[in-house]
Amino acid sequence: MDAIDVIVTKRDGRELSTEQIDWVIDAYTKGVVADEQMSALAMAVLLNGMTRREIAEWTQAMIRSGNRMDWSSLPGRTTDKHSTGGVGDKITLPLAPLVAACGGYVPQLSGRGLGHTGGTLDKLESIPGWRASLSNAEMLGVLREAGAVICAAGEGLAPADKKLYALRDVTGTVEAIPLIASSIMSKKIAEGTGALVLDVKVGSGAFMKTVDRARELATTMVELGTDAGVNTVALLTAMDRPLGRTVGNALEVAESVEVLAGGGPEDVVELTVRLAREMLSAAGLDGGKDPADALKDGSAMDAWRRMISAQGGDPDAALPTAAETMDVVAPASGVLTRLDAYGVGLAAWRLGAGRERKEDPVSFGAGITLHARPGEEVREGQPLMTLHADDASRFERALAALDGAYAIGGAGEVDLLPLVIDRIRA
Amino acid sequence: MDAIDVIVTKRDGRELSTEQIDWVIDAYTKGVVADEQMSALAMAVLLNGMTRREIAEWTQAMIRSGNRMDWSSLPGRTTDKHSTGGVGDKITLPLAPLVAACGGYVPQLSGRGLGHTGGTLDKLESIPGWRASLSNAEMLGVLREAGAVICAAGEGLAPADKKLYALRDVTGTVEAIPLIASSIMSKKIAEGTGALVLDVKVGSGAFMKTVDRARELATTMVELGTDAGVNTVALLTAMDRPLGRTVGNALEVAESVEVLAGGGPEDVVELTVRLAREMLSAAGLDGGKDPADALKDGSAMDAWRRMISAQGGDPDAALPTAAETMDVVAPASGVLTRLDAYGVGLAAWRLGAGRERKEDPVSFGAGITLHARPGEEVREGQPLMTLHADDASRFERALAALDGAYAIGGAGEVDLLPLVIDRIRA
Repeated sequence: MDAIDVIVTKRDGRELSTEQIDWVIDAYTKGVVADEQMSALAMAVLLNGMTRREIAEWTQAMIRSGNRMDWSSLPGRTTDKHSTGGVGDKITLPLAPLVAACGGYVPQLSGRGLGHTGGTLDKLESIPGWRASLSNAEMLGVLREAGAVICAAGEGLAPADKKLYALRDVTGTVEAIPLIASSIMSKKIAEGTGALVLDVKVGSGAFMKTVDRARELATTMVELGTDAGVNTVALLTAMDRPLGRTVGNALEVAESVEVLAGGGPEDVVELTVRLAREMLSAAGLDGGKDPADALKDGSAMDAWRRMISAQGGDPDAALPTAAETMDVVAPASGVLTRLDAYGVGLAAWRLGAGRERKEDPVSFGAGITLHARPGEEVREGQPLMTLHADDASRFERALAALDGAYAIGGAGEVDLLPLVIDRIRA
Repeated sequence: MDAIDVIVTKRDGRELSTEQIDWVIDAYTKGVVADEQMSALAMAVLLNGMTRREIAEWTQAMIRSGNRMDWSSLPGRTTDKHSTGGVGDKITLPLAPLVAACGGYVPQLSGRGLGHTGGTLDKLESIPGWRASLSNAEMLGVLREAGAVICAAGEGLAPADKKLYALRDVTGTVEAIPLIASSIMSKKIAEGTGALVLDVKVGSGAFMKTVDRARELATTMVELGTDAGVNTVALLTAMDRPLGRTVGNALEVAESVEVLAGGGPEDVVELTVRLAREMLSAAGLDGGKDPADALKDGSAMDAWRRMISAQGGDPDAALPTAAETMDVVAPASGVLTRLDAYGVGLAAWRLGAGRERKEDPVSFGAGITLHARPGEEVREGQPLMTLHADDASRFERALAALDGAYAIGGAGEVDLLPLVIDRIRA
């Protein structure tokens, strides 16, 4: 077997054989296939595509490059969620303990943010004492104690994907749907969950800008999960505007706690409950407590507190706040017709909520509080949003990102995607 | 400017800007753009193509990565030829001194062989004492003395191309016509020739297997040369069968000397004279001595002897021969209807005439003598060809390469490409 043969097969629009896929993933993980060869192959995959069989085998080869986790010793069924990432998307935080409160076990391996969408681990790390890195034994312990765990993936999980993802990031090959799907699903399948709900975001603040692209990605991932024996379902959900009223690490933790206390923004509550029902249903656990009730009766909040404490965090500690704030006021009276997710995400990133390079720290207090949401009435001079930063010099570039990101007009001009656009099953 | 922007532009099928092209070539030469980024870009170019403007600017950027040679101090006009490579293609050897004998100056920078096609420098190095590496001052001296020089390109000539070529070789991106054309033409334009004739080979033994692909490459290169102020013309010529009656280093030198002495195989003579006339015409030198006459009157031979001597070679020295020979005999009587260039080239390579890796030596004596050419009658048991090798153990694998590479049948079954298929001008 030879790297050039594999590259040329895909370059010329032919299907890769099982042997070619197994060999190239294994040889790349071991360094026998060089980065410059894998990036040429990734570009050929991006431009020429892959069949369902190729994507399934590529994913399985990436899983085999490392370890597969096993939760069979738990006394119940596992179920998990993955979001393709969005602005203000803190749903994992209330969702994991909520599902635990309704009888599911949620072994969530999560990531950090890079670019304008935040990372779940960055958000949770704003809680004093909370640790993202757990051994497998510690994960199992937290799951037994709290019913949910959110932590970083260990080194041994799909190492081929880690290496390939870093390569795609610098070679313009991130956007290949077969590679996105196999990257996400190799980690989720290796994570060992029995059921999986995918939240595929659509809109300016999402990775997939159109419903068609999102549907293609969702379908590919649902097929992959199903082929691997994981009961998988996907929702396409709106990311044309931010989710909820906060964007930023500690700000989003606070909003999540509001949701767990039975309050919080309507859209966050609606999506959290919907995803919780899907997760329970995919695991065959739909007969138990309804998630809407678990938010009201305090049981989800109890699971949250157990989960945070079990990972070293203090659920009662004050969250970090930013030193400086600045209000953005409405330039006119009317209805907020647009609030662009990408513009708001970019502004929050520039305020310090996100990182430019992998090794950068994030600011826990930085971000944006949204005082008005699309469809709501505003009055001239009323604060539309508050910017939070550790350093006032960041406001200027954040304001530039917000330029043109919102509009005030008549009620008839509001044109938003429905919160849940579609549901996709195998 | 950022490598990912450049890659994504081409990946998405858009045209690269002048600034993007200049930046990416310069940054790649300096190591700012990494190999894995350039290989992704090369694959995107291969699959999405380039416009005439992009190819011209890419070529100019590669030329600017190094030095451009200048022959304006010579008392006459420069003209050169480039062949895309074939089996038994020794044409440069008689052609350069022949054109010199007719009044042109030929500053030919040439290469070594890799794979089944031989390299001009490997062939000339079989002449005892001959040196391929010359300084610019030495090149000028040989040109003044002999009217022609054939030598290796120095380090300073299009270094971006050297680096990119090595990368394409291991990433399945050799076959991109914009990259092939710019690679060849950046070196030829930087070489400083005033006129250029391209011999684009077509057939099993050539890089371009079809007339259509060859015409596309030839047209692209003619446009590039013309845009750069080099008077350029291309011939598409046959490489379905080998050229002449010898394949191998010293064997081809001997055949070239026969041509310079007024003899030699008909096809080699015909193509040499045709290319010489094209080179003289492209340089505006068609009023002088006709090349066919210069082969007869000894003036081409005189130029050859001066050129070889000026580079340290002894034109009268005996050429190396291989220790072992083996005849391949005709299995039946009839007409030789086919003699596949690729099969013969591969057999010669396996006999030791070519190299497997860049750092390998070649055998000067190894190769094949062809006793019959397609269209000629053969009798059962008569030698069709003689294999030459330093080691008899090489014969078996060479014979395997020849299996199915020739056929004997009726005169009506001979189906060859015309020697000169087409002529392409801007």
